[in-house]
Amino acid sequence: MLLKTFVYPGSFDPVTNGHLDIINRASGICDKLIVAVLVNGSKNPAFTLDERVDLLKRAIGNRENVDVVSFAGLLVDLVKQEGATTIIKGLRAVSDFEYEMQMAHLNKIQDENVETLFMMTSVNYSFLSSSSVREIAKLGGSIDDLVPECVKEDIFKKFGKGQGE
Amino acid sequence: MLLKTFVYPGSFDPVTNGHLDIINRASGICDKLIVAVLVNGSKNPAFTLDERVDLLKRAIGNRENVDVVSFAGLLVDLVKQEGATTIIKGLRAVSDFEYEMQMAHLNKIQDENVETLFMMTSVNYSFLSSSSVREIAKLGGSIDDLVPECVKEDIFKKFGKGQGE
Amino acid sequence: MLLKTFVYPGSFDPVTNGHLDIINRASGICDKLIVAVLVNGSKNPAFTLDERVDLLKRAIGNRENVDVVSFAGLLVDLVKQEGATTIIKGLRAVSDFEYEMQMAHLNKIQDENVETLFMMTSVNYSFLSSSSVREIAKLGGSIDDLVPECVKEDIFKKFGKGQGE
Amino acid sequence: MLLKTFVYPGSFDPVTNGHLDIINRASGICDKLIVAVLVNGSKNPAFTLDERVDLLKRAIGNRENVDVVSFAGLLVDLVKQEGATTIIKGLRAVSDFEYEMQMAHLNKIQDENVETLFMMTSVNYSFLSSSSVREIAKLGGSIDDLVPECVKEDIFKKFGKGQGE
Amino acid sequence: MLLKTFVYPGSFDPVTNGHLDIINRASGICDKLIVAVLVNGSKNPAFTLDERVDLLKRAIGNRENVDVVSFAGLLVDLVKQEGATTIIKGLRAVSDFEYEMQMAHLNKIQDENVETLFMMTSVNYSFLSSSSVREIAKLGGSIDDLVPECVKEDIFKKFGKGQGE
Amino acid sequence: MLLKTFVYPGSFDPVTNGHLDIINRASGICDKLIVAVLVNGSKNPAFTLDERVDLLKRAIGNRENVDVVSFAGLLVDLVKQEGATTIIKGLRAVSDFEYEMQMAHLNKIQDENVETLFMMTSVNYSFLSSSSVREIAKLGGSIDDLVPECVKEDIFKKFGKGQGE
Repeated sequence: MLLKTFVYPGSFDPVTNGHLDIINRASGICDKLIVAVLVNGSKNPAFTLDERVDLLKRAIGNRENVDVVSFAGLLVDLVKQEGATTIIKGLRAVSDFEYEMQMAHLNKIQDENVETLFMMTSVNYSFLSSSSVREIAKLGGSIDDLVPECVKEDIFKKFGKGQGE
Repeated sequence: MLLKTFVYPGSFDPVTNGHLDIINRASGICDKLIVAVLVNGSKNPAFTLDERVDLLKRAIGNRENVDVVSFAGLLVDLVKQEGATTIIKGLRAVSDFEYEMQMAHLNKIQDENVETLFMMTSVNYSFLSSSSVREIAKLGGSIDDLVPECVKEDIFKKFGKGQGE
Repeated sequence: MLLKTFVYPGSFDPVTNGHLDIINRASGICDKLIVAVLVNGSKNPAFTLDERVDLLKRAIGNRENVDVVSFAGLLVDLVKQEGATTIIKGLRAVSDFEYEMQMAHLNKIQDENVETLFMMTSVNYSFLSSSSVREIAKLGGSIDDLVPECVKEDIFKKFGKGQGE
Repeated sequence: MLLKTFVYPGSFDPVTNGHLDIINRASGICDKLIVAVLVNGSKNPAFTLDERVDLLKRAIGNRENVDVVSFAGLLVDLVKQEGATTIIKGLRAVSDFEYEMQMAHLNKIQDENVETLFMMTSVNYSFLSSSSVREIAKLGGSIDDLVPECVKEDIFKKFGKGQGE
Repeated sequence: MLLKTFVYPGSFDPVTNGHLDIINRASGICDKLIVAVLVNGSKNPAFTLDERVDLLKRAIGNRENVDVVSFAGLLVDLVKQEGATTIIKGLRAVSDFEYEMQMAHLNKIQDENVETLFMMTSVNYSFLSSSSVREIAKLGGSIDDLVPECVKEDIFKKFGKGQGE
Repeated sequence: MLLKTFVYPGSFDPVTNGHLDIINRASGICDKLIVAVLVNGSKNPAFTLDERVDLLKRAIGNRENVDVVSFAGLLVDLVKQEGATTIIKGLRAVSDFEYEMQMAHLNKIQDENVETLFMMTSVNYSFLSSSSVREIAKLGGSIDDLVPECVKEDIFKKFGKGQGE
């Protein structure tokens, strides 16, 4: 029996209940799950790398087989460095599907030993993205069912709003 | 460390190189892969259940961690019976994606412990299906790059044609 | 103020919780909702027209502004006959969207006064169809969250199975 | 009979014949239509809020049951403030469909009483967007069949071009 | 300069204005257009092969560079036999796109010299298919804008109806 | 017989093997192929216009019936200026399809004599885009199978990296 390590990469800007759903389910089918936060120099994230890692860690809580790391280079290099050969991603919609298919093929070209697995996001979170959370929080709307309770206040603080203000 | 068993269900009418691609890659990331041939009473398969199982077995050859079985009932019941909790499927195109998303959610309702994982079919087989193999074989066209060499003759025999006749 | 009558057409073979979701929400935004069961001579329905109408009526119960009718001809003719100008349909997925867009344009050509409105099916039923209910019932699986409680037994009877048998 | 008020939100940067098509048809199936122009601080619109409202009003002309307003906050708050419970949107293509499905579900979470209805844009405008109007006007191409006659000159002026220059 | 021959294959069961649109436009960009009617043994066409060829010929009328033929085998064999190397197809929607992409790749495998070109069907016919024409004619609806005037009566005769009966 | 000139427009920022695949195949079915590099003032290209033209010319090499030009205005104007009536584009995925369908219809409105033809990109390049080449090069990954050998070094130089650094 091999030790199966999965890498779950993303921007997590910020973590949502959709991400947590994948983390919960993926960590149940591998021996170790590495949640990898992209430093992502080209975009302009709302939350700093440290904030994104911190929110994720609090949302995940204390689990033996889940680690949170950050990385800046090629995803396949991180995968090798972590002793893994498998990337795991969530799929919500057709637009996700086409983008992720493209990325899976490109990663295969970088390293043919790296495999990408996909899970369908639970229907309850199939319409949810970090960008919609940011947009709603900016307008002072409710993000109660969209993000973990323990990171809610940090998200509103970032956008200078309390909920219901 | 848990023993990870994946179930790969399908009609395999007949097995194609696209199926073999998923079998090869999936068997590399689990401890045991069960290839499950649907008896599938409602459709009218071109190959009998026995033929489909036989072609699959010859195409797969002798591999320690791959088994071929047939089943008639609910997929989630087979998964439990095999001591597995994970279904694996290939995704080629958007139409696959929507159908498989539907099936994954329906299986989750039948048994919430059953997880479905997806792999993108290699680009070389992204356009390939059993039905197109049957259609081409019926017309006497070339299926050389579409199915394993060892099952080619059986497929042509089924449709009363040799290639190039 | 005009009296707004909406027509909600379908095969309802059999009614599902997804249909009921649309009926509940649509009846809240019009004055009268006509649920129209297609006689649909070309296909081979699992339930007879009378059964489909009966299951629908029991599932809907006693509501002042919802009627169930059956019809055999052009949908636009039924719409006119009911004094309506609006068709309402549910949308679950991209494949629905393309088919329904086609139907809406064709109905517009039959009668330019007829308008088609669409609602997104609730996420909880976004993966649900009558054909998947029939398939699961045939195999003796659970349809508890898929159809109204009061029609469950009739569906299992149709396929000669009880649940859990 | 209830008074039915529909809210039709958008950027309208600038109004196109596709928008007018939805306004014409939607205003025929509700008692009052509120066309709501998003202030939309995060993007960089080509036309100011006042210009977008002004072009819309001239394009719509004098209609008893259509109002144009602007708004800055959550869409569901505007809907309540206008005494409405229904949002209406146009659908052109699969990419629209997925985005709008996401927005409809998110608005449902903000306020479960708010319903979103969709209309298929007429085929003549199914390929038309404000951004393509801007792009063509910038290059001095013809926008004759793309926008209402009465706003054409304002659009060319914005981009420092006359048509055919 | 080479003589460019394009082959436009289909079932044409029956010919629609959408087919004619492609024939008109395709014949303008090649030297010779071969309209190829699939004998198509596996399906159950509403019109016989002779009827389908006859309706097409009348709809096309007398054009110097358009021929109508029928064929039964592999499409790539017909292409070669006609001295052509190019197949032309119309695209209406995403579902067309995926199917046609699959066929183009399969034909490439049969003969790597055969190229497939696609045209977008005009928006006026983007929602139109032979099957919807058959369905509407069966119900006695209007097919005035859907098929060429000269074949209308034959289509109604096939289904034992006159329009407006 | 007419002289058939096709125009193949794009940003080519930079040229990829996917572009070359279309150029090779398209130049085989027309008399002359004009590869047209958009000056594209609104975006912020990674390579200057001169660099993009230069990389394309080196990638294409010496072919009698292929020319590379740049253009700034309406595509239909370039088409007329080159004595052509046909635009050729590659299609990789559903998202391409919807965008290109929109562009084809808009160009048809600018000039009804201009026809757009589409080719499916070979499966080997179906996941490949200029933006993914830039992203991988930036991170020092391998672009060996993604771009022509002769432009590889220029791409790495642009991003201040050598491969494998």
